Amino acid sequence: MENDAYIPESAVVGKFVVIEEGVQLGENVSIGHHAVILKGTKIGDNVHIGSHCVIGIKPGGNKNMRKFKHSKQHLVIGDNVRIGSHASIYSSSSIDKDVFIADQASIRENVTIGAGTIVGRGAIVEVNTKIGRNCTIQTLGYVTAETHIEDNVFIGPCVSMSNDKYMGTQNEKLKGPYICNGSKIGNNASLLPGVTVGKKSVVGAGAVVTHDVPEKSTVAGVPARKMKEKENTDDTVS
Amino acid sequence: MENDAYIPESAVVGKFVVIEEGVQLGENVSIGHHAVILKGTKIGDNVHIGSHCVIGIKPGGNKNMRKFKHSKQHLVIGDNVRIGSHASIYSSSSIDKDVFIADQASIRENVTIGAGTIVGRGAIVEVNTKIGRNCTIQTLGYVTAETHIEDNVFIGPCVSMSNDKYMGTQNEKLKGPYICNGSKIGNNASLLPGVTVGKKSVVGAGAVVTHDVPEKSTVAGVPARKMKEKENTDDTVS
Amino acid sequence: MENDAYIPESAVVGKFVVIEEGVQLGENVSIGHHAVILKGTKIGDNVHIGSHCVIGIKPGGNKNMRKFKHSKQHLVIGDNVRIGSHASIYSSSSIDKDVFIADQASIRENVTIGAGTIVGRGAIVEVNTKIGRNCTIQTLGYVTAETHIEDNVFIGPCVSMSNDKYMGTQNEKLKGPYICNGSKIGNNASLLPGVTVGKKSVVGAGAVVTHDVPEKSTVAGVPARKMKEKENTDDTVS
Repeated sequence: MENDAYIPESAVVGKFVVIEEGVQLGENVSIGHHAVILKGTKIGDNVHIGSHCVIGIKPGGNKNMRKFKHSKQHLVIGDNVRIGSHASIYSSSSIDKDVFIADQASIRENVTIGAGTIVGRGAIVEVNTKIGRNCTIQTLGYVTAETHIEDNVFIGPCVSMSNDKYMGTQNEKLKGPYICNGSKIGNNASLLPGVTVGKKSVVGAGAVVTHDVPEKSTVAGVPARKMKEKENTDDTVS
Repeated sequence: MENDAYIPESAVVGKFVVIEEGVQLGENVSIGHHAVILKGTKIGDNVHIGSHCVIGIKPGGNKNMRKFKHSKQHLVIGDNVRIGSHASIYSSSSIDKDVFIADQASIRENVTIGAGTIVGRGAIVEVNTKIGRNCTIQTLGYVTAETHIEDNVFIGPCVSMSNDKYMGTQNEKLKGPYICNGSKIGNNASLLPGVTVGKKSVVGAGAVVTHDVPEKSTVAGVPARKMKEKENTDDTVS
Repeated sequence: MENDAYIPESAVVGKFVVIEEGVQLGENVSIGHHAVILKGTKIGDNVHIGSHCVIGIKPGGNKNMRKFKHSKQHLVIGDNVRIGSHASIYSSSSIDKDVFIADQASIRENVTIGAGTIVGRGAIVEVNTKIGRNCTIQTLGYVTAETHIEDNVFIGPCVSMSNDKYMGTQNEKLKGPYICNGSKIGNNASLLPGVTVGKKSVVGAGAVVTHDVPEKSTVAGVPARKMKEKENTDDTVS
């Protein structure tokens, strides 16, 4: 507990917690044991932060990594947000009210997450990404940098995305997927750089999406193609 | 170290450890630095708990998440269990003797894990799941909620499972895979909701299992089909 | 802070940090809150270690797990290495200068990582593996045990590898992939035990590599085959 951090009397703070300077807590915040709240983080009312979280991390890197513009803004966490154990969240991101962030989830800098969205266990959201309201990013889902996810989207478990057509070059512009309102992406599907998934579309489990998916369509396979109706109607592999 | 927790003299406890009330430790337990053992957890003899674990977590959620029935039972960990660093385990689950839980593994509430089973590094086991004896869940394997895994099953690295046919609805019943005795699932395979993998069957790496797999068969591909014998016998991609 | 650890005055050490005996820090090392540096670890100059890391872990296991030979060597971390939060690194490994290890990454024992390489967020590198210089292992990439990765290799996000042809036997020799200089592996691809990816080759996203890939070739699909030129030129799934 430090100098000028603002910690109301209503806060319930675990053991060995570190709260750095300039942190502001709302009313009725609970913080698990060993959690670390770094400089300047702003936390709303009724927020729960699990044990061993690290919140408000400043980005770093090595000489081989891309440099992203990083605003000086602090991390802002809205009311009623609940964060599990071992989660890590970077500075200059904004988490809206009623968001649930599960254990071991990791959210990078310059990310916005809309109200009511769920970020699953071990899911990772990379830098410069926008996620809308009432989405679900399931367990171990991977949302790459420079991705845009609209509202009411379901990203299944272990979904993978990429944003780097040339894999590892330094100069090409990164472009993640754009996933429109109400789409559903099946578990372990792969989305390639810059693909758009149209609104209310469904991507099958394990599909590899190499091209844009039109709205209200269902695709599956490697590479993903539109499903014919009545495919695979028997119940046993033949 | 708290009030009425039972900590025998044989315990070796690291620095900055938190042991909450009602915790009971067996003989010769070792606990790494910064570990957190939450209320009421029962730990057997010769158990090792790694640094930074959080053990006995009570479930939470937001308004968009399904509510699961949660018994008031405490987490029970059997003799000779070894748990790595940064693991998280929920209350009301039961881990039998000789289980190994690797670093960063996460096990939810109302899960039972049979004797001798290995839960790999970063592997995740969701709620209401039963895993038998002498199974291996490899690194980053994902076992979804409402899954049943019998004995001697091998789940390869990065295997993904799902349980929600309609992806994100609130009312449909969730049903994870049922994986029978002695089956082996190759790395990064995807299992769809409710599929059964028959006993002693093999699922190839990267396969997408959309239908039940008969016992003693081998399937591969997207969607997974029975392998013809002598497929792909040359040694180089053509 | 303990007995005979060597901690220069230039070190910046967070709160609740544990530094065990025999640890040696170079100049200008910074260590985040709650980090744990275990016995005998040697750390170079200008190294940053994030909050909640556990560094220098000794391996364990249960009776169903393979035993690997484990040297008594301590973990050595070179100059200018930067390690994120919640990372875990084992003893007897060697991390060369300028390596970046992101949050939640996990590196096992008897691993060498060459100068300038990036190990992404949540990426896992298993035992007895050698990774060259200036490689990128992207987020959630999984490098199995007994793998050899040469220099300048790009492993995309969520790539999965395996090393155990018979899945779970105790006696067969494990053999991971061998990935040659300058190769690029697309996101969520699966590499099977013992495959070689030739130099400057490209493996498509979601591919399942069951056979060796010749140098300077591009493969994709399940199972992976050489790409014909001009495949999939339209921009929408059909």
